[in-house]
Amino acid sequence: MDRRSFLKTSALGGGAVAASTLAAPVYAQGKRTLTMVTTWPRGLAGVWDSVERVANNITEATDGQLTVEPKAAGELVGALESFDAVVSGQADMYHGADYYWVGQHPAWAYFATVPFGMTVPELMTWYYGQDGKALHHELGEVFGVRAFIAGQTGAQGGGWYRKEIKSVDDFKGLKFRMPGLGGEALSKLGASVQVLPGGEIYQALSTGALDGTEWVGPWSDEKLGLQEVCDYYYPAGFHEPGAALSVGMNLDVFNSLTASQQKIVDMSCADGHQSNYGQFISNNGPTLDRLKAGGTQVKEFSEDVWDAFGKASIDLLNGYTSDDMFKKIHESAQASMKASSRWLSATDSFYATQRNRVLESM
Amino acid sequence: MDRRSFLKTSALGGGAVAASTLAAPVYAQGKRTLTMVTTWPRGLAGVWDSVERVANNITEATDGQLTVEPKAAGELVGALESFDAVVSGQADMYHGADYYWVGQHPAWAYFATVPFGMTVPELMTWYYGQDGKALHHELGEVFGVRAFIAGQTGAQGGGWYRKEIKSVDDFKGLKFRMPGLGGEALSKLGASVQVLPGGEIYQALSTGALDGTEWVGPWSDEKLGLQEVCDYYYPAGFHEPGAALSVGMNLDVFNSLTASQQKIVDMSCADGHQSNYGQFISNNGPTLDRLKAGGTQVKEFSEDVWDAFGKASIDLLNGYTSDDMFKKIHESAQASMKASSRWLSATDSFYATQRNRVLESM
Repeated sequence: MDRRSFLKTSALGGGAVAASTLAAPVYAQGKRTLTMVTTWPRGLAGVWDSVERVANNITEATDGQLTVEPKAAGELVGALESFDAVVSGQADMYHGADYYWVGQHPAWAYFATVPFGMTVPELMTWYYGQDGKALHHELGEVFGVRAFIAGQTGAQGGGWYRKEIKSVDDFKGLKFRMPGLGGEALSKLGASVQVLPGGEIYQALSTGALDGTEWVGPWSDEKLGLQEVCDYYYPAGFHEPGAALSVGMNLDVFNSLTASQQKIVDMSCADGHQSNYGQFISNNGPTLDRLKAGGTQVKEFSEDVWDAFGKASIDLLNGYTSDDMFKKIHESAQASMKASSRWLSATDSFYATQRNRVLESM
Repeated sequence: MDRRSFLKTSALGGGAVAASTLAAPVYAQGKRTLTMVTTWPRGLAGVWDSVERVANNITEATDGQLTVEPKAAGELVGALESFDAVVSGQADMYHGADYYWVGQHPAWAYFATVPFGMTVPELMTWYYGQDGKALHHELGEVFGVRAFIAGQTGAQGGGWYRKEIKSVDDFKGLKFRMPGLGGEALSKLGASVQVLPGGEIYQALSTGALDGTEWVGPWSDEKLGLQEVCDYYYPAGFHEPGAALSVGMNLDVFNSLTASQQKIVDMSCADGHQSNYGQFISNNGPTLDRLKAGGTQVKEFSEDVWDAFGKASIDLLNGYTSDDMFKKIHESAQASMKASSRWLSATDSFYATQRNRVLESM
């Protein structure tokens, strides 16, 4: 489907995804159970922890006045039906990655991650320190959803390759698994982009049906056994530099909560974002060390590859700016990233490089 | 005072700072006002915002069952008396930087920042993803305080210099303002370390009583006018690579809260930490650009300077490890930092460098 014509005819223009008109009763006086559909299999490392963290936060902080019951993908609705289930009022809230809703509106991607986009500190700056959160709410209003970022995998790894990538030409014809906007950008480099669910990746790499894949990061990737079927791992990738997970609540349901309950939902998600980030980074560091020790070749893409990643990503993002809402969010995010990155590069990155150099020499 | 003998005779060994024996009533059934003393002047940019954020979080999320009333330094007790006021039950809670309590125990510094210590993402990893938070509580138990990190300035700038620093020899005899452990480390390089309050710095630089100073970061520093009296600014410094602010509550008061109120205090602080970080980074980036445009020379310390910073810092930290509690916290933090920094360097730092290079070339 041509995306430009899609943007003109769906989402903001049509009635198919209009805000729910559910007339929600005021539940504030009694105990209430909120059904949270999710886009995840139950128990998925890190991600399901985020689901439970946010659910428990809300339940505990409201002393059970709001009890959140998470549902794994498929238990009530399929993973990618979660958004519509919340919009229609079939479920009270979702936990997912907002880039799954790019079919509803491409700007949702900015509240998960976009190719060549923000690192986690940059996202925290935009979302909590500038207008990112308000824009998330503004986008949600269109659909009848109040969404908050609520989990964070950190930078997703550049991925696994059966052969070393020495230049951008090595992507031509490469059968690589990468979903979403990253995959769209990668196809501009000539890659044959595949989208396979996690459970099929190992087999596809074993048989040569795939030449490589991205998944999440070392912690999650090791569990899939990717190190057994690929020799080369690239920690830094362009496609998901800081992938937030979000909770979205049906707006009528949200509006039926008391002000203190709304505040608790908000803070429960913020706490979920930060703690989940801590959890992923905690596990990725030691796993990367273990993978190296096990013989994985850890590599960096060359500058010509980064040039191509960048051009493809920016071309892709610019392609959506004919939509006013996308343009507004895109420009806000890009301006914020530009300003924060200069300070973070001059302090955190520079400092950590020097500190690590000195500590290793001691 | 000799610090080693200090460690043997105070804090953990003696009764002077023993846990409060205040018998707190159970307040859970009624509305209650909590007095929060702080170490800050009212309105101090960024820092006072953190005070208000946490106070409002608690008040709003409990629907006023707990109403937090912040007091500026001097309104109830002096800034550095805040800890003792909470321990004794004179105040219910404090908002400050925990390195102010190194006189009570040096390990408090780890819950603010230490020289050559963690960046903010590394701190989040240790604190929320590993055992940092539990250790914070363990240290607090000794004094009868339940503390949470609750604000964050990000990396504090390397500081302002009237003359360029070309090698480590330039620190010999340099009259430089730097409080705390950073100042102790800097004095090992031969600097004449001064401790002046913010209000006196500008004047001291104007008259040559000081050759340089650190303060907070570009946003705060510009308000002091430091760019008018120093030509050289070093964004990356070694002394406070990610300065957390904390809230500590009298432990008996904390224990008198309901479980849901305790959860709300916890989440209010976590939200405060992340949002305050976003606020500081939001403001530092554009201010750094403005300072550059105004003629400030923005520099980096050379490798020999970093070598000396590192040696002095590690020597200083190792000097406290005869204390068991310090050793436990130090080793936990250092191990966490080592593991997380490798992943963050290989992803965030490497990625941001390439991304910024490509975007600037477009």
